[in-house]
Amino acid sequence: MEFRILKEPFLRALQRVQGIVEKKNTMPILSNVLIEAVNDNIYILATDLEVGIKTSHSASVIAEGKITVSAKKIYEIIKELSEDEITFKTKDNDWVELKSGKAQFNIVGLSPDEFPYFPRIHDENLVKISGSMLNDMIEKTSYAICHDETKYNLNGIFVKAVEDGDKKLLRMVATDGHRLSIVERELTGSICPELSAGAIFPKKGILELKKITEDVTDDIEMTFMDNSAVVKKGDTIVVMRLVDGEFPDYTRVVPANNDLLVTIEREPFLRALKRIAILSSEKFKGVKFNIDPDVLEISSSNPEVGEAKEEIEITYTGNTMVTRFNAKYIIDVLSVLGDDSVQLHMKSEMTPAIIKPSSDQGFQAIIMPMRL
Amino acid sequence: MEFRILKEPFLRALQRVQGIVEKKNTMPILSNVLIEAVNDNIYILATDLEVGIKTSHSASVIAEGKITVSAKKIYEIIKELSEDEITFKTKDNDWVELKSGKAQFNIVGLSPDEFPYFPRIHDENLVKISGSMLNDMIEKTSYAICHDETKYNLNGIFVKAVEDGDKKLLRMVATDGHRLSIVERELTGSICPELSAGAIFPKKGILELKKITEDVTDDIEMTFMDNSAVVKKGDTIVVMRLVDGEFPDYTRVVPANNDLLVTIEREPFLRALKRIAILSSEKFKGVKFNIDPDVLEISSSNPEVGEAKEEIEITYTGNTMVTRFNAKYIIDVLSVLGDDSVQLHMKSEMTPAIIKPSSDQGFQAIIMPMRL
Repeated sequence: MEFRILKEPFLRALQRVQGIVEKKNTMPILSNVLIEAVNDNIYILATDLEVGIKTSHSASVIAEGKITVSAKKIYEIIKELSEDEITFKTKDNDWVELKSGKAQFNIVGLSPDEFPYFPRIHDENLVKISGSMLNDMIEKTSYAICHDETKYNLNGIFVKAVEDGDKKLLRMVATDGHRLSIVERELTGSICPELSAGAIFPKKGILELKKITEDVTDDIEMTFMDNSAVVKKGDTIVVMRLVDGEFPDYTRVVPANNDLLVTIEREPFLRALKRIAILSSEKFKGVKFNIDPDVLEISSSNPEVGEAKEEIEITYTGNTMVTRFNAKYIIDVLSVLGDDSVQLHMKSEMTPAIIKPSSDQGFQAIIMPMRL
Repeated sequence: MEFRILKEPFLRALQRVQGIVEKKNTMPILSNVLIEAVNDNIYILATDLEVGIKTSHSASVIAEGKITVSAKKIYEIIKELSEDEITFKTKDNDWVELKSGKAQFNIVGLSPDEFPYFPRIHDENLVKISGSMLNDMIEKTSYAICHDETKYNLNGIFVKAVEDGDKKLLRMVATDGHRLSIVERELTGSICPELSAGAIFPKKGILELKKITEDVTDDIEMTFMDNSAVVKKGDTIVVMRLVDGEFPDYTRVVPANNDLLVTIEREPFLRALKRIAILSSEKFKGVKFNIDPDVLEISSSNPEVGEAKEEIEITYTGNTMVTRFNAKYIIDVLSVLGDDSVQLHMKSEMTPAIIKPSSDQGFQAIIMPMRL
C-alpha cells in the first residue's frame, strides 16, 4: 500500500477520529486507525466498538492496501510536519514508512485483519433528515442525559418518530431522573420502523452526531442495522450501537393540568439565577422561589457563605406559592433556549414544573422541585 | 464601612488576586481578600504568606473601614451582576451587604484584624527597572525553574546585579539541575545592596511579576525589605518572600572552551525537534544528534512506536560528533527565543552544550547531554 496526500486534509481527517478511539488501551487495536487506500481514495476508520466513524478523502494512490497505526501518534506526527506533501507506504511486518520533506518516520502498525468489522452501508435504506434540525434537537436535550453509568438506559437520548394527525414528528427525550427534556420537530420524508419503535442513541454517539451536524445546512442521512444507528453526511459515516434497554415511560412524567402560569423574560431570569445560585449550597444548588402576583423572589442561603435574594418581574395572577428548585437544572434549560420569554407551568408547590419557551410549542423541560 | 463602585474596575481588581489567594483553605483568612476604604479609594489585598498583592481603585467612599470576604465568592458574585453600580457595606459581626440593581447579598466575612500584616512601602527606596525588559528576562529563564519542591533553593529565579566594566547588568538565572538558563540585560539607575548580593525570587512571585509587566511599556519600581522583594507598578504592589537558601554556583556550570560551533536556523530546527521527539521515549524524550560537517541528523526511536530521523542544514566544520539530548530541553530554549539563527557551542560528546542566539550575547542556555 502506498499513497501521497496533502497535509491539511489528512490532518483534519485524523483530528476527526481522536474523540472516538479508545484511550484506555484495553485492546491496543482500538487505539489505532485503519487506513485503507482504494482507487483514488483513502478511507480512515476508527471505533471503540460502541461508536465508529469512517471518512473518505481523495489521495494519489500508488498501491492499494490497508494498515492500522496509532491514531494519536500519527496525528501528532502529521500535525508537526513542515511540508505539504506526505508519502505513506506500508512495509514488511505491518511497519509504515512516512516521508515529508526531509523528515522520515517508521511507525509500528498492527495488522488490519484484527480491526473490528465496520458495517457496509446500503444507500437505498437511508432516510434524509435536516442536519441543523438534529443539531438543535440534540442541543435542547443532551444537557439532561444521565451520567450515572449504572442507569445505562438513561445514558443517551431516546429518539422516536411519532404521528400527530397528518404530521410526522421526530421526538428526542433525555432524563436523569430529576429532570427531563423533550423536543419535537416536524419530519419530512419517510419513517423507518426503528424510528417508529424508538431507539436510545448512546451519549458518545450523540456527541459525534452533534459534531457532524455543526455549521452545516446540509441534510444528513440515517438508517438502522444490526442494533446500530448509521448516520451519513457527505464522505463521513458514523455508526453507533444503540443502548440495549428500555427507556422509561416519560409520557407519565409529563404533568397534566399544570394551570398556574408564570411568564418571565428569559435573559434576566437566567442571570438572576446564576448570581443567586452562588450562595446556595455547593452540592444541591437549591434556590427558593417565592411566587407572588407579578413578582418572583429568588433567594438562597448557605450558612458558611451568606444569603442572597432578588426580585424579578413576572406575569402571574394566581395565589402566593413557595417552592424550591435546583438552580442548575433551570439554568441548563434557559441556557439552551434562544427565546425572549419563557413560561413556568406549575400546579402546586411539591409537583413537577414545566418550562416552555413562550413561542416554541415543540419544547418542554420538566423539573422536579426540591423539598423545602 | 460603605462605598459605591462600578462593576468593571471592581471585577478586574478581584480577578487580579485570584491567583494569589490560598486554595488549600488551611487558614481560612488566606482565602479571603481584605477590602479597605480610605478617602476616595478602596484597597484590595490578598496574600498566601509567600506572595502578597495590594491594588488601589477609586470609589465613592461613604464610610471608611475594612473587612475581609471570600476572594472566590465575591469575585463570582460581581462577575454575574447585571447592573453597573454596586454598593458595599459592612454590618454587625463582620457581615457584608452587597447591593446592585434588585440583587441583594449578605456575605459572611472575617475580621480584618486577623489578616496578615502587609508591609508599608517607603517610596524613597524604590529603584526603577524597565518592565518590558524584566518580562523578557523572566520569559527567557522561567522555563528552567525546578519544580521539585525538595530542592527549594532551585524553586525560583536567582536575580543579581553585576558590574561589567562601566556597565551595570541585571542577571537572572534558573536551573533544575539538568539545564540552566542565564540572561543579562543592561541596567540603568542605581543598584541596591540586595540586588548586588543576589536574591532568589520564588516561582509564584515570578509569575505575578510576569503578569504585571505584561503588555506595558511602563517601568516598574523595586525595593527589598524584611527578606522580601517589593515590586510596584502604578496602583499595584506585589510583595514576595525571597527563597531562603543558597543558589548553587552556576558560574562553575557554564562550560569554558566550548569551541565547536554549530550554527542552525532556529525555526526549522525547532519544528524538526518537535516531530522527531514524537517517536522518542515518553519519559526521557531522548533524541540523537549526529553532527557532520554542514549536516545535522536528528533521530529517535521507541521500540513500541517506531523511529524517526531528519537532516537539517547547519554550518559546522569540525569532526563528526554523536550525542544525545532531551528534546524537550532544547525545544524549551528555542521556543523562548525570537532570533532567526542559534548557535550550539560544544566541546565533546559527553560535556554540556551551550545554546546562544546568534545575535544576542546576553542569553545562554546550558544543557547536559544524555548518556548514549
